[in-house]
Amino acid sequence: MKTKNNLTLGIDIGGTNTVLGFVDENGNYFAGSSIPTNSTKDVNNFIERLVKKIKLMLNENGAAYNFAGIGIAAPSANYFEGTIESPSNLKWGNVKIVKMLHEFFEIPIVIVNDANAAAVGEKYFGFAKNMRNFIVVTLGTGLGSGIVVDGNLLFGENGFAGEFGHTIIDHKGRLCNCGRHGCLETYASVIGLKRTVYDLLSFYNYPSVFRDIPFKNLTGEMIFEHAIKGDQIALKAYDFTGEKLGKSLANLVACFTSEAIILSGGLLKSGDFIINPTRKHFEDSLLKIHKNKVKIIKSKFDDGMAAVLGASKVILNEINGKPYIKKVPVNE
Amino acid sequence: MKTKNNLTLGIDIGGTNTVLGFVDENGNYFAGSSIPTNSTKDVNNFIERLVKKIKLMLNENGAAYNFAGIGIAAPSANYFEGTIESPSNLKWGNVKIVKMLHEFFEIPIVIVNDANAAAVGEKYFGFAKNMRNFIVVTLGTGLGSGIVVDGNLLFGENGFAGEFGHTIIDHKGRLCNCGRHGCLETYASVIGLKRTVYDLLSFYNYPSVFRDIPFKNLTGEMIFEHAIKGDQIALKAYDFTGEKLGKSLANLVACFTSEAIILSGGLLKSGDFIINPTRKHFEDSLLKIHKNKVKIIKSKFDDGMAAVLGASKVILNEINGKPYIKKVPVNE
Repeated sequence: MKTKNNLTLGIDIGGTNTVLGFVDENGNYFAGSSIPTNSTKDVNNFIERLVKKIKLMLNENGAAYNFAGIGIAAPSANYFEGTIESPSNLKWGNVKIVKMLHEFFEIPIVIVNDANAAAVGEKYFGFAKNMRNFIVVTLGTGLGSGIVVDGNLLFGENGFAGEFGHTIIDHKGRLCNCGRHGCLETYASVIGLKRTVYDLLSFYNYPSVFRDIPFKNLTGEMIFEHAIKGDQIALKAYDFTGEKLGKSLANLVACFTSEAIILSGGLLKSGDFIINPTRKHFEDSLLKIHKNKVKIIKSKFDDGMAAVLGASKVILNEINGKPYIKKVPVNE
Repeated sequence: MKTKNNLTLGIDIGGTNTVLGFVDENGNYFAGSSIPTNSTKDVNNFIERLVKKIKLMLNENGAAYNFAGIGIAAPSANYFEGTIESPSNLKWGNVKIVKMLHEFFEIPIVIVNDANAAAVGEKYFGFAKNMRNFIVVTLGTGLGSGIVVDGNLLFGENGFAGEFGHTIIDHKGRLCNCGRHGCLETYASVIGLKRTVYDLLSFYNYPSVFRDIPFKNLTGEMIFEHAIKGDQIALKAYDFTGEKLGKSLANLVACFTSEAIILSGGLLKSGDFIINPTRKHFEDSLLKIHKNKVKIIKSKFDDGMAAVLGASKVILNEINGKPYIKKVPVNE
């Protein structure tokens, strides 16, 4: 009797949307879908909607497979505890999400940091396939980073390495959700872009459509839309954001000497509006030995999908006896 | 017949002094010595003095051993080419130093980056013995860094990773030898401290002994000496230097989540004058998850000795068939 092939589900829980998709054992992915995260509502509401969605996807696509595991990608994920630990962009506090999902699915489930999952996705399915040293930067509600060194994800001493979004670029700068001032993500993210629009409205006196829009209502999509139409404030906001990001990436490359930076997340929907100024200021700020050697690339995946694929790969590896974080004794 | 034990020589070529020392197979080190580097003179003059010194040391200590190899630590070292590649703090241009020394010693010789050598020294002989994630920062004429991730040195794509001294902390800041503005090493180094003294002389109007000393004549030792005597400018210069260094180290830890930062180099002769403000601003600037978890330690070794020991260890490993940089195929 032929046994069915394994199927894994990847889930990326973002500040706005939660993206889902299946990956089979051959690395083919399909049935990509999403639900709103809506973290202002109770977490049980989210779990209920998520489980319903998963069951629907299984009904439509799962029959030919053995549903083998779920990999979750989320901010502030604790792999060892199976929890999401009060990230600033989700309002649920601490969530024992692996335990909660185990009540509905009696299969292996793991949770990993979203930007790290995206880095795994890029390594196995994206433009980083042949790279050993690269960095994935996700520009969404916040700024996440997954750093690959010599083919391996960088975890650091406690698994929380790669908080590039919380490197401080201006100690007297914008208040960050982390309680400090001037973190990079307060500038280089969708929310950062939005904050920059209002800063520029205060600084310049150009006419701009944004003068009619309250802070609360402005979205990244609207800024993109009006940049296309030539709104001066929108264009300057992208330049400012790209400058902060490009200069910071140059410092990161001074430390890591990566081959490429892969940009992803909601902000990348704006394409060249954000990529061009980022590249310019990056290149201008590099050490001579790095100039013209480090690529800045847009991910080949839509928002969230790299993390979905990466989380799927992580759970598949676990099932095959390859743990995501190996605890190695000192001086082995 | 009993064969003699292997003896290796470590050499650290610094901007001011070149430090030498022997290490036996059991990791014991002895006969530490030094010569002035004096890179304003011809490199042949340096090699001549270096070879003379090595021969003297061998005559005094080498008889009982088999002299097996030389490990050199230097700034801008190219391990693959055996060269020193025009570092800003040595005036020799490109130097084929391994080839030059091979004319005098027909034994294995390698050259490695000085801060990386120091990191190896700290890992095998110093306070980092039981650490898997730590960073060595050498504060001398410039600022070097050796970064250890998961027990391995970070090389990056081309072996030039760890240029933490050339992360830009102020794009309108001090001109750096690299041609850019505001690199960390223009603030956090012996030369940076000296530049700060003159900046502070221009800013304040306190009386200070430094008002009588021309820029060219001022040394790090003199600043230390007058800090002890309570000179306001000297004390403020240390605080300013520690602030720049501490804040930058906090950003580095956000990316790497290291267990400890080990400080070494000439600036550390000033002890608490530099360590205390560095620790204060580091701790104040850390992300909450890192607070009170990352140690800042002074190296247990005198200036240059960690790199001497590390370079010795590297050549001993090479002799034992363990190459320093392994070239690994992509997707192995």
